[in-house]
Amino acid sequence: MEQPRPDLIPNPAVRRLSLYLRQLESFKRKDRRTISSKQLGESLNLTDAQVRKDLAYFGQFGNPGIGYRVDDLIAQVKKILGTDKVWNVLLVGSGNLGRALMAYKGFNAKGFRLTAVFDASPQLVNKKIGSFNVQPMTELEATIQKNQIRLAMIAVPADNAQDVVDQLVAAGIRGILNFAPTSVNVPPNIALTAVDLSVQLEQLSFQVNFAGMAPTPLSDTGS
Amino acid sequence: MEQPRPDLIPNPAVRRLSLYLRQLESFKRKDRRTISSKQLGESLNLTDAQVRKDLAYFGQFGNPGIGYRVDDLIAQVKKILGTDKVWNVLLVGSGNLGRALMAYKGFNAKGFRLTAVFDASPQLVNKKIGSFNVQPMTELEATIQKNQIRLAMIAVPADNAQDVVDQLVAAGIRGILNFAPTSVNVPPNIALTAVDLSVQLEQLSFQVNFAGMAPTPLSDTGS
Repeated sequence: MEQPRPDLIPNPAVRRLSLYLRQLESFKRKDRRTISSKQLGESLNLTDAQVRKDLAYFGQFGNPGIGYRVDDLIAQVKKILGTDKVWNVLLVGSGNLGRALMAYKGFNAKGFRLTAVFDASPQLVNKKIGSFNVQPMTELEATIQKNQIRLAMIAVPADNAQDVVDQLVAAGIRGILNFAPTSVNVPPNIALTAVDLSVQLEQLSFQVNFAGMAPTPLSDTGS
Repeated sequence: MEQPRPDLIPNPAVRRLSLYLRQLESFKRKDRRTISSKQLGESLNLTDAQVRKDLAYFGQFGNPGIGYRVDDLIAQVKKILGTDKVWNVLLVGSGNLGRALMAYKGFNAKGFRLTAVFDASPQLVNKKIGSFNVQPMTELEATIQKNQIRLAMIAVPADNAQDVVDQLVAAGIRGILNFAPTSVNVPPNIALTAVDLSVQLEQLSFQVNFAGMAPTPLSDTGS
């Protein structure tokens, strides 16, 4: 598969890749061997043209008259997303949300392994939470190098978020999933995605508040 | 304030409203009284034109030569988002992620009160988890009516998600935040937003995998 020019691929197409992967895995659980772009699209309220266009950014996958082989396409999409290998992930913040992330079982199945947990608070450092031993921030760089960690999740108070992000970037982290309820800045070569649970509820309350509004579920899915 | 036609307002503008609110609250904590569209934009890597355009969908807020009064604009944005009042929210699913959501303190501060928790599993029904008593699905409709609940979060296995969504819609829920790792369908008058934590990590791994890619943090923020 030829590596595409990543700057030419729109973010929404990459988001839909994750949705295609979910659907393909669901088809696989139902023992489907092949699937057409029309069937894959219909399961997500997308047109077959959209499915073909999204996949075409990354190569030529289908077989005329057969469609896509489910197993093959799962493997290819995982390779594109980078989840054909396991990523070690660290977490900074062991408060309520941090503990939730520690307990969340969904990451492992998708190729992510929570490997280390850090906290700045002396009250929490060295505490045992589930199977994790909360480490001090001073051990960040050594742990990142030892475990070849590239991805981090932060679940810290808003006022600490930028400082934590700066420390992560300096220590070699390349992608950050920000659960702190604030915006943070990263250098252009660092990937950043934000998940603010209250923002998600606000978006819903806006839509419900404006009762006449027709929501567009798919444009929000997975984003 | 004149009510805008909601179908004319792009989703990204509504998402940015949440970001403006976060920044305005941050400015307020620092005792700022007024702010210009330029200053508000700079804090989020947006142009002042973008800020003014987004707010103009909802009315006329600034004062020439002064900018926006921070307190006023916070109140107005909350009113637009519907978070000037408190929303009762219910949760279906009391597994790991459900428990995380029960423990999450961030909702209250933003105008959302987790009011009731439901589970389909007989092993979990009537269990006490923190301050919540897990209720059976048979009590859904009565509880929704009694507490005037319009918003629901679901944290159930993928295979149960559509069934739970159908029950919620039938029982009067108007907006659903879906944490289940699958797509669900809702009628056009029901608002839906999905949060799949593994999808967020996949998007990061994609960006880090394609090392040359310049990520665009703001396009992902809060989405």
